[in-house]
Amino acid sequence: MKAEMKTLLERWSEFQDLSRALSVLEWDQETQLPAGGAAARANHIATLASVAHEKLVSREFRSALKKAEKLPRLTAKEQAMTREARREHRRAAKIPSDLVHAVAIAESRGLAAWRKTYRTNRWSGFVKPLTELVRLKRRVADAVGYRDVPYDALLDVYEPGATVKELDPLLGELREATAALLRKIGRSKRRPDRRILRRHYPQAEQLAFGRKVVEAIGFELDKGRIDLSTHPFCTGFDPGDVRLTTRVFEKHLPACLFGLIHEAGHGLYEQGLDPKLTRTPIGNPISLGVHESQSRLWENLVGRGRPFWRHFLPRLKRVFPRQLEGVKLDDFHFAINEVMPSFIRVEADEVTYNLHIVLRYEIEKDLVNGRIRPRDLPALWNAQMKKLFGISPRRDSEGVLQDIHWGMGLFGYFPTYSLGNLYSAQIYRKAQKDLPELEGKIAKGDLVPLRDWLRKKIHRWGRMYPAADLIRRATGAKPSPRPFVEYVNAKYGELYDL
Amino acid sequence: MKAEMKTLLERWSEFQDLSRALSVLEWDQETQLPAGGAAARANHIATLASVAHEKLVSREFRSALKKAEKLPRLTAKEQAMTREARREHRRAAKIPSDLVHAVAIAESRGLAAWRKTYRTNRWSGFVKPLTELVRLKRRVADAVGYRDVPYDALLDVYEPGATVKELDPLLGELREATAALLRKIGRSKRRPDRRILRRHYPQAEQLAFGRKVVEAIGFELDKGRIDLSTHPFCTGFDPGDVRLTTRVFEKHLPACLFGLIHEAGHGLYEQGLDPKLTRTPIGNPISLGVHESQSRLWENLVGRGRPFWRHFLPRLKRVFPRQLEGVKLDDFHFAINEVMPSFIRVEADEVTYNLHIVLRYEIEKDLVNGRIRPRDLPALWNAQMKKLFGISPRRDSEGVLQDIHWGMGLFGYFPTYSLGNLYSAQIYRKAQKDLPELEGKIAKGDLVPLRDWLRKKIHRWGRMYPAADLIRRATGAKPSPRPFVEYVNAKYGELYDL
Repeated sequence: MKAEMKTLLERWSEFQDLSRALSVLEWDQETQLPAGGAAARANHIATLASVAHEKLVSREFRSALKKAEKLPRLTAKEQAMTREARREHRRAAKIPSDLVHAVAIAESRGLAAWRKTYRTNRWSGFVKPLTELVRLKRRVADAVGYRDVPYDALLDVYEPGATVKELDPLLGELREATAALLRKIGRSKRRPDRRILRRHYPQAEQLAFGRKVVEAIGFELDKGRIDLSTHPFCTGFDPGDVRLTTRVFEKHLPACLFGLIHEAGHGLYEQGLDPKLTRTPIGNPISLGVHESQSRLWENLVGRGRPFWRHFLPRLKRVFPRQLEGVKLDDFHFAINEVMPSFIRVEADEVTYNLHIVLRYEIEKDLVNGRIRPRDLPALWNAQMKKLFGISPRRDSEGVLQDIHWGMGLFGYFPTYSLGNLYSAQIYRKAQKDLPELEGKIAKGDLVPLRDWLRKKIHRWGRMYPAADLIRRATGAKPSPRPFVEYVNAKYGELYDL
Repeated sequence: MKAEMKTLLERWSEFQDLSRALSVLEWDQETQLPAGGAAARANHIATLASVAHEKLVSREFRSALKKAEKLPRLTAKEQAMTREARREHRRAAKIPSDLVHAVAIAESRGLAAWRKTYRTNRWSGFVKPLTELVRLKRRVADAVGYRDVPYDALLDVYEPGATVKELDPLLGELREATAALLRKIGRSKRRPDRRILRRHYPQAEQLAFGRKVVEAIGFELDKGRIDLSTHPFCTGFDPGDVRLTTRVFEKHLPACLFGLIHEAGHGLYEQGLDPKLTRTPIGNPISLGVHESQSRLWENLVGRGRPFWRHFLPRLKRVFPRQLEGVKLDDFHFAINEVMPSFIRVEADEVTYNLHIVLRYEIEKDLVNGRIRPRDLPALWNAQMKKLFGISPRRDSEGVLQDIHWGMGLFGYFPTYSLGNLYSAQIYRKAQKDLPELEGKIAKGDLVPLRDWLRKKIHRWGRMYPAADLIRRATGAKPSPRPFVEYVNAKYGELYDL
């Protein structure tokens, strides 16, 4: 590697170390921080965010980047490195340093306010910090620039290159396919026995079983942790340090279990990144859509599949013999796949899930683009819930307050969840072709071949290829909603006898 | 406050936010980090340490400091702020940035190596990282400068202004007084029944009781946490976020209990700092000697006193009714105060404790001053143990490997423990004068008056006064070993009927 390239990587790793230190502070903020430490932590995070930003926009960084870009005969990897370094630098350089600081403070305050409001259900306490966050994010969007709408400039952080223009028809198509399937399901006479999942499942046993499942799918616990948090998430500081969180409801088995499988899917992506690339501009996951494809693939395509429970149900019964007495595989499989309008996105079935995203996407677009105000969100939310699902939340914590995202300033994040759903079906279909007897193996609890295939096709590439390219290389086709629509139609057609 | 002073405080708080972010990463490193994350964390810490150092030695900081120093009519507080900012800046400016980075990497590696060696008892694996740490710390000492010996330059970080010249006679005096008392105790016929403390005490109950005690002495759990770690410690990121750790041995009651009281003593100091000063140069504890005076005061003067157990023994018996059946207050009090040669410093009695410090102090002085080599430490340690205590460790984990300090590069830290012991007796004696019926209150479990007195006399002052001044202001006398010697002579004279 040429000296100029090495210098760029040194500059980059300085920025990246600080970004990861920042992630550690944020993980701690969500899982460990005592209430009394919130204000101080906001300062630590804001200062660290500013300093990381300073490094990325510094003269030294820019000069190292320019010199590396001018080198003749860069390898394909080196080209990807300069491309990604340029992309990050370009965006950061447009945002003034004091705005970075203000956003970080507002995000910590928003998070604390969200947490409190979530507990108390008093929306009024959340309006001020949320308004401030929207105002600042809009300033960021204006600073960064966009062609069509400000929202695009935020979306770009999570899904580089994605735009409203592209997403609108995609989500529209999904919405229609979903509505059609839901109508058919509505006419079906078949209903699962959902009481199976609502018995008393003590916390400690749920967590212990969850850990075993997570290990079985190949998540390495000496390179990670599992903790509790209000809202489940996964964060990686290095392929050797990837942390999942979950939450447990003792009267609702799926929350902890599928939450953990979901986050472990994210975690496998983080653990599967190439350790040799971690301190380079291509050492991170390429996009949140791809990230979510990994979590949804494990949660749904694998974890809500019949083969998976052929292996795990007998084991789950050993932990909860009384609660699951006499429950047959088909009953259990149908219960964990019940399709019905529900309030909570993270616990929604695969069919209605994307409607939850449509709801959020429409609202946050209007919020960022200045068409609606934060104080009106609960009313708008509830009206949309009624329209899309036909139900009305009894309190905001099962409505507009359920997700942590807006409180943390994550606008433009939600649509990546639907992209993840689409990608997951497309990727899984290809895995089924490439791996002979895949579902037979899954039914024996042998999940590592799938993990290793994903590692080879997706994880290890980091940011080498843009998301759409990566999907194309992995699956042989460009990203399309069709595999997902076909998958849900087939699966739920069978379950509901359509 | 004048604009120049405000600018200095802004510069300072940037440095301080980064230092505290660093402490969060270190706390996480010791309590949460999975094994696979160690190498990456070393990088994060090293980069963050370098960036914090850059801020402290930057042209902007120096210029802000100079301007603030030139202001006429600074208040006493402002004078203390510029004094402390100057002291930190002066030291930092002498250490090259690459050395700061190298030290941070070596400390993380040393910590990981210590942890592994502690488990495996193979000293050979620790020699290389320790040698590197000694080499780098010596480079730091040479860069910073010293009048008499390199060790002084390291000591100064933990106990500003302290020197070997001052400590040698002080520790010599303590050693002699200890030896004299030990001879008398050796001739006494009285012996406690130590088996009381060696029964089976389950972990969960020990921790739950420990939490209650910690809360009773006034540690606020909404402004802190308690976690487990290999070596107990306390760290504060803000008066609102102070974290204690402990460890539990189910066959040895005192370790967790007195460990927690000790760390909570540190924690009270951190929680008692003036929140209005936290982001200024006088917002931190003044020295480790003063810090240790707080932990030792609570652990020993209060926690190993008869009045304390008059209140808590009946409560402890409710948790462990079988283990403590028929145990009388005097038996328990004697058992937790048994004086005898022992291997482990943190569990040593008050009398022999300072000999553990003498042992470490002599070895680390010679190590830093270049008179001995890391590979020879186990033999030297064991020879000194034999000489001072008449016993020989069976393995290094109960000998030279027991403490985390050297693995973390903390040379010059140990003697502050003995200073803490001396200060603690002097401070407690004054508290007894100032607070009428103090021990009567303690016997009723009313511990908060003492906490509040300490807060007023010690905690809230931060770095307003140098350590010796602070002790003088709090106690009316300059620091002296006499109160401590008189205290142990009286207490153990009674217990051992001397």
